[in-house]
Amino acid sequence: MKSWEKHVKLFIPGPVEVYPDVLKEMARPVIGHRSSAFQDLFADTVAKLRKVMFTENDAFLSTSSATGVWEGCVRNCVAKKALACVNGAFSESWHKVALANGKQADKIEVPWGKAIKPEMLDEKLATGEYDALLFVHNETSTGVANPLYEVAKVMRKYPGVIFMVDAVSSLTGMKVEVDKLGIDVCLASVQKAFAIPPGLAIFTVSKKAYERAEKIKDRGYYFDFFTFKKFAEKNQTPSTPAIPQIYGLNLQLDKMLKEGMERRFERHKQMADYTRRWALARGFELFAEKGYESNTLTAVTNNMGISVSDLNEKLGERGVTISDGYGALKEKTFRIAHMGDTKLDEIKELLAMIDEILGGG
Amino acid sequence: MKSWEKHVKLFIPGPVEVYPDVLKEMARPVIGHRSSAFQDLFADTVAKLRKVMFTENDAFLSTSSATGVWEGCVRNCVAKKALACVNGAFSESWHKVALANGKQADKIEVPWGKAIKPEMLDEKLATGEYDALLFVHNETSTGVANPLYEVAKVMRKYPGVIFMVDAVSSLTGMKVEVDKLGIDVCLASVQKAFAIPPGLAIFTVSKKAYERAEKIKDRGYYFDFFTFKKFAEKNQTPSTPAIPQIYGLNLQLDKMLKEGMERRFERHKQMADYTRRWALARGFELFAEKGYESNTLTAVTNNMGISVSDLNEKLGERGVTISDGYGALKEKTFRIAHMGDTKLDEIKELLAMIDEILGGG
Repeated sequence: MKSWEKHVKLFIPGPVEVYPDVLKEMARPVIGHRSSAFQDLFADTVAKLRKVMFTENDAFLSTSSATGVWEGCVRNCVAKKALACVNGAFSESWHKVALANGKQADKIEVPWGKAIKPEMLDEKLATGEYDALLFVHNETSTGVANPLYEVAKVMRKYPGVIFMVDAVSSLTGMKVEVDKLGIDVCLASVQKAFAIPPGLAIFTVSKKAYERAEKIKDRGYYFDFFTFKKFAEKNQTPSTPAIPQIYGLNLQLDKMLKEGMERRFERHKQMADYTRRWALARGFELFAEKGYESNTLTAVTNNMGISVSDLNEKLGERGVTISDGYGALKEKTFRIAHMGDTKLDEIKELLAMIDEILGGG
Repeated sequence: MKSWEKHVKLFIPGPVEVYPDVLKEMARPVIGHRSSAFQDLFADTVAKLRKVMFTENDAFLSTSSATGVWEGCVRNCVAKKALACVNGAFSESWHKVALANGKQADKIEVPWGKAIKPEMLDEKLATGEYDALLFVHNETSTGVANPLYEVAKVMRKYPGVIFMVDAVSSLTGMKVEVDKLGIDVCLASVQKAFAIPPGLAIFTVSKKAYERAEKIKDRGYYFDFFTFKKFAEKNQTPSTPAIPQIYGLNLQLDKMLKEGMERRFERHKQMADYTRRWALARGFELFAEKGYESNTLTAVTNNMGISVSDLNEKLGERGVTISDGYGALKEKTFRIAHMGDTKLDEIKELLAMIDEILGGG
């Protein structure tokens, strides 16, 4: 057996565990991407996607990771200068992607584990220097959920600033009401709370974002919002898309709407609450600033000095895996994902295994 | 049953029919993209990919369609001006992608159905105006295989011109010896002769291409060759990749190497020969210029004035589909793909069905 053929159940913050029904759905025979069957699939999928994102804006399917859509965001919507809100590895990367695309971009930076506060933005945006905000809702590297709803209120004061939200590891696990919040571009990938194998990203575009993009010449092609729009009007994608992942997305959206979005958010909150209580009861601390803990993953501070790699090795022997800390946090934190199709009982089972391995508790 | 749930066997030039073993392989549980299991999968896949491409160059996996890699090519390798060789819809699009990325790009253009000849390039390149060539090996819209080997000989005279080859619908169905031909960037996607569902592109990068890219600042991030290189050195991809398609690719490469590449190319040639003979015997003409017919798909000129849409509707009732002509060629040609895992017997069966539908013959 090759190493990648061993099934290890994933409790890492993406890709997350994909349930057999989704894998089976993805194994459907392929259809032509210019066929009427594909147009039906596209229309049906996008309509449901807009529901779970609470939006009337255009929604698109991008055959790329979310990183690609980051590039699209900066190429389409940054004319003057972007302000990036940085408090972890992914928000830091988005800033770098802006610079790599020749864009002007400053950052508000707070230490990893801390949250970005609305007043920080307000102060910077008041200078009038910026025409776009790069905001990561849920920092996967630190388990911090930045206060999206409070930030959105501040953004109302700055209609000239395009509000772009990376909801990669929160969307469908935590509430993100695109229209109510006035989000101009909201993006995510499907291997997080959607619980689909990676290979597809999704995003929405507001009227205001199109108006900005219209004025920018060098938008490129692959992530040009107008290219997506032109083909979406025919219920198609600009180039050959990741059809298996779209099959998976269609199924998952059905399951979400059947579960009910409020119940789904509540399920994620329950798993998060349980995980946090467990960590604190064991004497661990939470890495996220109090009040800003994510509901889709928990980053636990390794204040007890356990060996995270030993723990994960032993979990591996039992057929499951969690994630060590990101980058420099490797042994300083560990991360447990509780999102997608994962149920509270599975989290309980996982944490009981960790208790067994660590002993005491 | 939803329209996209009906299995119609594909004889269209991409996505092509995917066999059950590949679909099953893709339905394996997902692994973490930063795990050692993924590193094993990556290393194993890339090593085999280089074999079927006859190259020692770096080979990369891009979570995008090949269109994305087109963008990468022009952003990484066009400093001065590109020359695009245009004789169909896809070669035309690559030129547009260059312009959309703010690059200078001229084109050599011949009518659809005709081939690009080496002397045409030679004349243009001799001006010294160009530092990159955009060359589509196999025009999927017209069934023309441009003379790659002859063009490669001309390219030897112009070491300052980066030689970029779109082998999207030829690679592994027709011989493309990357190193022998001196191809600097060779790209393809997996839904053509690889016979994998869409969602992944692959490409190789030569030393010369890196040297050019190094001097270009605004390469972006998602398709930046150096981003790919940095992560590939750790047997990783820059962002979360399309893992199911990589599983499929790994399996397909095993099958190719087991079949033997020469035998594989011969199988494609036999299917092409059979299809062409069939078309001519029925009184049809071939759309491709004589001597430049593709071995992976045949574009048949509809000189008999049949209704291509009626034919395809009737084929659909029998559970198979071919492709109408591309764009303006919709009713003027029809296209039959014979690539990937398709066997000669399946082509015989398809053509017999067409005979039955059209009568006479």
